[in-house]
Amino acid sequence: MRALVFDGNALHFDPAYPTPDPPPGHALIRVVRAGICNTDLELVKGYMGFRGILGHEFVGVVESGPLQGQRVVGEINLACGQCPTCLAGMPTQCPNRTTLGIDRHDGAFADYVTLPAENLHPLPQAVSDEQAVFVEPLAAALQTLHLTHISPHQRVVLIGAGKLGLLTAQVVALTGCDLTVIARHARPFDLLAKWGIRAAEEGSLAPRSADVVIDCTGTAEGFAAALNIVRPRGVIHLKSTYHGLPQADLTRAVVDEVQVHTSRCGPFAAAIRLLARGLVDVDALIDARYPLEEGIAAFEHAAQKGTLKVILEI
Amino acid sequence: MRALVFDGNALHFDPAYPTPDPPPGHALIRVVRAGICNTDLELVKGYMGFRGILGHEFVGVVESGPLQGQRVVGEINLACGQCPTCLAGMPTQCPNRTTLGIDRHDGAFADYVTLPAENLHPLPQAVSDEQAVFVEPLAAALQTLHLTHISPHQRVVLIGAGKLGLLTAQVVALTGCDLTVIARHARPFDLLAKWGIRAAEEGSLAPRSADVVIDCTGTAEGFAAALNIVRPRGVIHLKSTYHGLPQADLTRAVVDEVQVHTSRCGPFAAAIRLLARGLVDVDALIDARYPLEEGIAAFEHAAQKGTLKVILEI
Repeated sequence: MRALVFDGNALHFDPAYPTPDPPPGHALIRVVRAGICNTDLELVKGYMGFRGILGHEFVGVVESGPLQGQRVVGEINLACGQCPTCLAGMPTQCPNRTTLGIDRHDGAFADYVTLPAENLHPLPQAVSDEQAVFVEPLAAALQTLHLTHISPHQRVVLIGAGKLGLLTAQVVALTGCDLTVIARHARPFDLLAKWGIRAAEEGSLAPRSADVVIDCTGTAEGFAAALNIVRPRGVIHLKSTYHGLPQADLTRAVVDEVQVHTSRCGPFAAAIRLLARGLVDVDALIDARYPLEEGIAAFEHAAQKGTLKVILEI
Repeated sequence: MRALVFDGNALHFDPAYPTPDPPPGHALIRVVRAGICNTDLELVKGYMGFRGILGHEFVGVVESGPLQGQRVVGEINLACGQCPTCLAGMPTQCPNRTTLGIDRHDGAFADYVTLPAENLHPLPQAVSDEQAVFVEPLAAALQTLHLTHISPHQRVVLIGAGKLGLLTAQVVALTGCDLTVIARHARPFDLLAKWGIRAAEEGSLAPRSADVVIDCTGTAEGFAAALNIVRPRGVIHLKSTYHGLPQADLTRAVVDEVQVHTSRCGPFAAAIRLLARGLVDVDALIDARYPLEEGIAAFEHAAQKGTLKVILEI
């Protein structure tokens, strides 16, 4: 099969990669569309030491195995289902997990991918193939609301109006809270204006004024910026993952009694419901579409500053 | 009056410091006993840029003003009472506050100190003068339980068995949770054994095994150590304040969906109740007593590694 493979040094297109042989209980899925995520851009820099087929945002049709013939999206963490963490209802934190296209399980930038039945979610007709590519990142955005209670009374600031930030802003805005998104470029300003979400430039907010600050910058600077904006006893919610260790003023956090929440992978079912009801605009986030064969050009496009979603047509 | 004064460079004993003239609504309190805290040791290294009389853990008798003649302890944050933070019920976070012996308000290592009426708590007879010196740090220990819910089901690990750590361990143990305190020296091991609280050496705990990890190390290393011990989606609670910025692996916190809580000053009334009922042993934490005139020697003693509480007799 065709596949976009990272060999530890470089990304290359392989026209004859072995088609995976799904183990019992796994579905073989023919991939239809896939999306390039910032994590993919980090992986080709060496993050996680991954080698193999990249890609964890996808939609496909089950070729064989469970849910055969159905159009599905798939959760990316392959959990063992038997450890205390799994039994406690936290399979995305399973210590024995592998992760689709990120950690020891071939990903979806290919003709076929395998996943266990329990990871699959059939899609309603109301969600298009392109929209379905956003289920995974939208679920990650929704995990913010799983691990931080945002009340409609609150002043919330979101920093980092990139791909994940613009999805997170949309789901946070659904709470009715008083949301301001810090943006730098014309593109997110335009999108936020279209959605009726307030945008502001960095430095325009009063220090210590926000009840909750959500960091979607994807950089080490996000925490320090959040600490300046959050009020005493407020919450900073971190979504950023990146290389390297930031210097973090934890003493100031203690003096201000700031709480730091974090979150990662989230609820696919909720993401599908919001997309099906048209409550989140993902179509406007698509910047480009490339065939799988032009995957390397697609990655180069995705890595350009300010690019939002690049879709691979498989 | 006599006072122990930090002039920005050195600590000195002043036999003729001006007695404070309390403004309306403030009490003039004759100090009876006071305690030296790690914060005092940081202040004489330049923390907060404080100059004046040190001391914020004390018990005294009101000489004039509100509560005249009563034996009292005093909350250390002098809040404005009128800003949104105060009106929201968080006077200890008032942005206009001064702080007794820490920030622009003379402290209690002196014959007299002033505080507003709303900061004062009369003491029941069951609490001795020496025990009363611990109300302030015990309240700070209790603030851990104000800002983190610890359930009796949980495995909790406390790192840093110093003055604050040993108080925090005692209040956390009252929840009935499965508590382990990481200690290094014979003294805390003995005290914890006496109290029936499990102690262990660093490195003896399984990684990612604790539901809650409380950092009382007072150092930048506490966060990294806590991150190793806490389970995915567990809570790290930071009590440490110190100079300098640690390198903090916030990306690992996000991947593990760890929540970071913090806390500082706490509820005096609760601390007094626990002391009055004999539920917290503070007498065993006293290492030495010095008259105010020997305050410099008292500070030197308090700064020695492994010293617990040093009391000044005023």
